[in-house]
Parts: sequence; C-alpha cells; structure tokens
Amino acid sequence: MKFASRMSEFEGSDIQEILKVTARPDIISFGGGLPAPELFPVEGMKRAMEKVLDETGSKALQYSTTEGLVPLREKIAKRTNKRSGTSLGTENVLIVTGSQQALDMAGKVFIDEGDVILCESPTYLGAIDAFKAYGPNFVEVETDGEGMVSEDLARQIESNDRVRMVYVTPEFQNPTGVTWSESRRRSFMEVINRYDIPVLEDNPYGELRFQGDTPRSLQSFDEKGNVLLLGTFSKILSPGMRVAWMCGEKELLERFVFVKQASDLHTSTLSQYQINAFLEMFDLDEHISTLVEVYRHRRDVMLSSMDQFLPENVCYNRPEGGLFTWAEMPEEVSARDVLIEAIEKKVAFVPGGAFYPNGGHENTLRLNFSNMPPEKIRQGIEILGRVMGSFTA
Amino acid sequence: MKFASRMSEFEGSDIQEILKVTARPDIISFGGGLPAPELFPVEGMKRAMEKVLDETGSKALQYSTTEGLVPLREKIAKRTNKRSGTSLGTENVLIVTGSQQALDMAGKVFIDEGDVILCESPTYLGAIDAFKAYGPNFVEVETDGEGMVSEDLARQIESNDRVRMVYVTPEFQNPTGVTWSESRRRSFMEVINRYDIPVLEDNPYGELRFQGDTPRSLQSFDEKGNVLLLGTFSKILSPGMRVAWMCGEKELLERFVFVKQASDLHTSTLSQYQINAFLEMFDLDEHISTLVEVYRHRRDVMLSSMDQFLPENVCYNRPEGGLFTWAEMPEEVSARDVLIEAIEKKVAFVPGGAFYPNGGHENTLRLNFSNMPPEKIRQGIEILGRVMGSFTA
Repeated sequence: MKFASRMSEFEGSDIQEILKVTARPDIISFGGGLPAPELFPVEGMKRAMEKVLDETGSKALQYSTTEGLVPLREKIAKRTNKRSGTSLGTENVLIVTGSQQALDMAGKVFIDEGDVILCESPTYLGAIDAFKAYGPNFVEVETDGEGMVSEDLARQIESNDRVRMVYVTPEFQNPTGVTWSESRRRSFMEVINRYDIPVLEDNPYGELRFQGDTPRSLQSFDEKGNVLLLGTFSKILSPGMRVAWMCGEKELLERFVFVKQASDLHTSTLSQYQINAFLEMFDLDEHISTLVEVYRHRRDVMLSSMDQFLPENVCYNRPEGGLFTWAEMPEEVSARDVLIEAIEKKVAFVPGGAFYPNGGHENTLRLNFSNMPPEKIRQGIEILGRVMGSFTA
Repeated sequence: MKFASRMSEFEGSDIQEILKVTARPDIISFGGGLPAPELFPVEGMKRAMEKVLDETGSKALQYSTTEGLVPLREKIAKRTNKRSGTSLGTENVLIVTGSQQALDMAGKVFIDEGDVILCESPTYLGAIDAFKAYGPNFVEVETDGEGMVSEDLARQIESNDRVRMVYVTPEFQNPTGVTWSESRRRSFMEVINRYDIPVLEDNPYGELRFQGDTPRSLQSFDEKGNVLLLGTFSKILSPGMRVAWMCGEKELLERFVFVKQASDLHTSTLSQYQINAFLEMFDLDEHISTLVEVYRHRRDVMLSSMDQFLPENVCYNRPEGGLFTWAEMPEEVSARDVLIEAIEKKVAFVPGGAFYPNGGHENTLRLNFSNMPPEKIRQGIEILGRVMGSFTA
C-alpha cells in the first residue's frame, strides 16, 4: 500500500513511548498538560445538559451549521472583547473542534509545500504536528523572556518571500510559560501591520492568570485583519468536550468554514448547546477564579520546591499563569537521559527538544504543575532534583 | 494575503446559495439528509448523560486517548462483526469525529497531488469535498443499479499507475439509494484482493433497511487488509454528536491515529461516554426498528406519490433502505432550472450534478424522504411533478 508522502512526517517518537508509563497511578507526572479533573464542574455540566435536553433536545441532537451555535458565538465575542479590547461580533467567531482543529485548518488554508511558517523558539508541539502535514519549513524567530524579538521577525519576513503564516502563543506559552510584554506586543504588531501575512495568536491559557494584569491581545492592535485569535473551553471548563473557537475577519473565517465543513461538518451540536446553557446558568468567572486559586498554589509549590531542590546550574521560568514552567540544564545534559532515570524513580516530564521544530536544545524540559496535588509536586521535584544533580554535578 | 493553492477548490456553489432558503419552515424540503428529529432518543440520552456524570464525571470531561473509549470500541467491533461477518477486535476500531473526519483523514493519509481516487458515478458529495483538499484526480468507475462494475474497476486500476484509493458506498448510497448485489460485492473484492489499494467502504445508512437481507460487507471478503469500513451513530442515534468510527487492520489504523491526533487530538470524551452508556442502558436495535418503521412509511409515501405525480419520462430508484431516492429527467432538462421554479412553489431538492466529481448529469436529482412528514411528502411530490411536467413535456 502506498501512502501520501506527508505520512513520513507522522511517526511516533521514542519519547512518546517512554511517556506512556505516565498513565500509571504510581507515577508523579509533570508530563502532560492536563487540567485538574477534580475541579471540573461536573454537577453544573449535568444540569446544563438536562436543561438542554428538556427544552431543545431534538435541535441539540441534530446536524447544525458549520459556523456554530449563534448564542454561544455571541457570548464568546463579548467575552473576548471584554478581555482583549477588541470589537468582535458573532460573525467574527467560528466554533471549532478544539484549538487543534484550528491549527490543522490553518495549515490547510495557508500552507503549500515548501512555504515558511515563522514561530517562537521553542513553540507548541501540537502546532508543529498539525502544520507539518502541509509540508512547511519552520523558521524559528529569536525569542526571549519577553516574547518574540520583533527585529528578527522583520528580518525573517524581509529575507524570505515564502513566509505564509506566523504562529505565536503570547500568553503563558506552552511550553515555556512566558508571556509577551506589552511593548513587545506593540512592536510585533507594528511589523505585522506592514505586511499581509496571517498571524495565529493561540491563547488557550490566558484566563488562568495568577497575578498581574491581562495584556491586550495582538488582535487588538491588528489594522489589516491579519490576526486570528484562538481560544478554547479546554482549560477553563472541559478539555474532553473539544469545543474551542477562532476569532477573525468574517471574510477570512469564511475560508475556514469551507475547510471545516469538509473536515467534520460542524462541532458537536450537543456540546455547544450544553456549554451555552452552562454559561447562562452559572458564573464562569467564579469557576475560573477557583481554578486560578488552586493552580496558583500548585505553581507556588512547584517553584519553591525547584528553588529548594534543583541544582544551581539549572535555570527555570517563574510563570504568572498557565499550566507550565520550563527548565534549562547545562548544555551537555540530555533531558531524555534524565527522563529515563527519573521514570525509574517514578517521576515524569517532557524533554524540551520536541518543541523546537528544527531540533536541538536537548537540555531543556517542560514541567506541568496543574495535574498533581501539592504534596506530590514537592515530592516529585525533590526526586527530580536528585536525578538532575547526578547529571549536572 | 496568500492562500494555499488547494483553496481554489473550496468555494461555495450557487446551488448552496439557492438551497439556503430550505431552512424556512414553509418550504417542503427533500434537500438535506437530515434524520427525523422527532425520533431522537432525547430522554435516553439525558439519562445516559446523568449516569456518566454521576459515576465518572471527571474522566468524561478530561482529555482522552486518540483511539477512543475502549468499551465503546468493543461494542462497535461486536456489532459490526454480527452485522457484517467480520472478526474485528477493539484494536480494529478507531473512533472519529463523524465519518466526515474519516474521509478527510483518508485523503491526508493516501493522497498526494495528482493521485487518482476511483469512485462510483455518482458518489457522495461530502467525500468529494473532503478529498479535493489533497489535489486528487477523480476517476468515475462505471456504475449501474447493482453497484460498481468490476470489469471497469479492473480496467481503471490496470491502466493507471497512480490509483491510490477506491471510495465506495455499497449500501443505500447517498445520493442514489442503490445497494450493491452480493455477486457484485464478490467480484469487486476479487479485483481488490489482487492489489494493494486501500478501499474506503462508507456505510452510514446500512442499518436503516426496510426490507430484504443485510448483505455481507466488502470488508468481510478482504484478504489483505485493504478495506477500511466506516460507520456512524449519526443516522441511528444522533448526527449532532459527531461520533463515528473506522474499522480496519491495526497497523493501518495506526497511521490514522497519528493524523487524528494532529487534527483534533480525540473525539469528545463526554460524547463517547454518553453513547457508550446509552448502549448499555437501552436497546439500540429496538430504537432502530422504530426509525425503520417510520422511514419505510415515508419512502413508501414518496414512491407512491412519485408513481402518481411524476411525468412518465422521469425515472427513479426504489431503494430498500436509507434516506434517499434519485431521479433522472430527460437529458435536456436542467435540475437546477427545475429547482429554481420548485422553490418558488416552496419545494426543494438537491440537483444531482454535484455528485459527479467530473461534472455532467445535470438532469438528475436527489430526494430525501426522512425529514418530512408523510402528508408533506405527498404534497411536495405533487408540486414537484407539476414543475417537472412543465420542463419535460
């Protein structure tokens, strides 16, 4: 049987194999990006579903439009405007089957084989996986603790006539936890506003802010309709339901509507009705403030444990929100080797190399703090510190 | 802004525009392919959801594996084996976000630009839409009232070294309603078993059989793991939930797992749990027998009305199940013109030309009988007969 040539890009990694053990309950896992399941609003979701099926059952189980449920899109537009300083309407919102679908569709809409995608360095692994089906070249733009470096962005755009998309995660990035500064956002958008290159502004974690003020979205500085903002209910309600959204210019979203229709017709009608009812019946902000409180504490425990237990030559971020922090060991240390030994001692994490589309940086690692209770975080970091110590001494 | 070259394939048709009016309640629509919403098992779905959220709420709202929920895959394997004479296990089932996703993924897995897809003539429009993102050439294999003509299939494979996939819908096809005879199935699979070309056997309507015996699936004759069988809960439970499946060889499905992970991570965990609970709490076969009874009556009313009201020079199928029948007017009559006049008289259908990937056959049309009550079917066909009469006289 012959496969499409793109299929050579789709292969399991040995690290995925290694990480399969992290599903075992005896493992302290900092590996996934899972929200804390004990905080899911199970009772609220049940009541929302009951209301939906009692009142509009036959509509909620039927096919629906590709664009998504109008009242849900309205609520998302309002919420986004309030948060990001934009003025979106219902027609600027497309419901998608998880942000992952938006990433896949962006590749389909914008990328021919050999086209260039500019991204942060490192960038989100799931985005790399989605885009690579369309045969792009990834160019990693210089990135520091304040975000993407705008001068390098401009240089890359000027020096390469096949740049077709810029992918960025400016708030509590997966994997690093970094949030772009306001000045960096402005200078990034000054560059973007000079061109007609679409920007995917992926923001799954922004509402999980533990301290400081919400920055303006890149989209709020957009003068030409270049920016598509991605948001999701995965981290604030339920990842299992696969309901997310893209915001952007109506004409641009229409391209995505055609593509989405061919990809899965529409996102689950029932899930859209259920989440819409939940938003009408309950206070999402109140729910989010509970999440923030719990995750803030877990981050605090992780950072103070890292301060206490990690070797001095390991540096790491102090994220202001989100689900992750990020560490760099001395250059000669392989996070893969550390992982193998850590798993022997029942602690797991994700080596950072996979987040660099062009490789390297094998001395880095991503640590998730949302999915483990505080005492396990402390215990796991202590073990990890000892394992790292044996490699970095 | 530059778009990928494939985007030139994604454009709305004028017929889609014309058919937008069919959402109006005063239109008698034979246009869509919607199940009857009054038959959805709303109460059962509610009780299933309550059970899931009471008993396993935090799991049901969490991320889950790309392959899908094991007990649901087990049930699908057993059900498929009983129906189709196969011996599939859980590992042979992949849950997908509607069959439409399976079609899109098949394009991604098998098709490079310029590769050839063999299909029936006509074939399912949604499949054409999904595949065309990958730049194939469609070759329509000769097809008659018994199915695809095996001699022509063999000829096409032999004469074209870029054939990479065969797409067929052998049971109550959308659009024609035709079911392949057993001998045609055997001779088709004799050809396929000589090659290593994957076959997508799409079967969304098979369980909606009004009379006669269930034929063996193509997959049950598969000697080399070439056949992927697609099934769905859309027509037997709820289309809005977007839960369907693919059955095939484990090694082949693994390719789809990689692709699915990059497309939407996984299908809604909650929807999978909910359907799984429904299957444990209620008798799906009993529910299907209710559907069959209602749809059989609607088909009967449609066919007898067609016998009574359509002009003599219009021919049409007498399907044994499914949701559709298919009509051919004299060659010089344009179904698009008939549609425009029918809509003036508040009756809608889908012109058949769009179901031929290489065009032509503008004198054909698809008629759906599942979504309208019997009296409206009779009334609508009477009107349609008069309109047709003015064109075919």
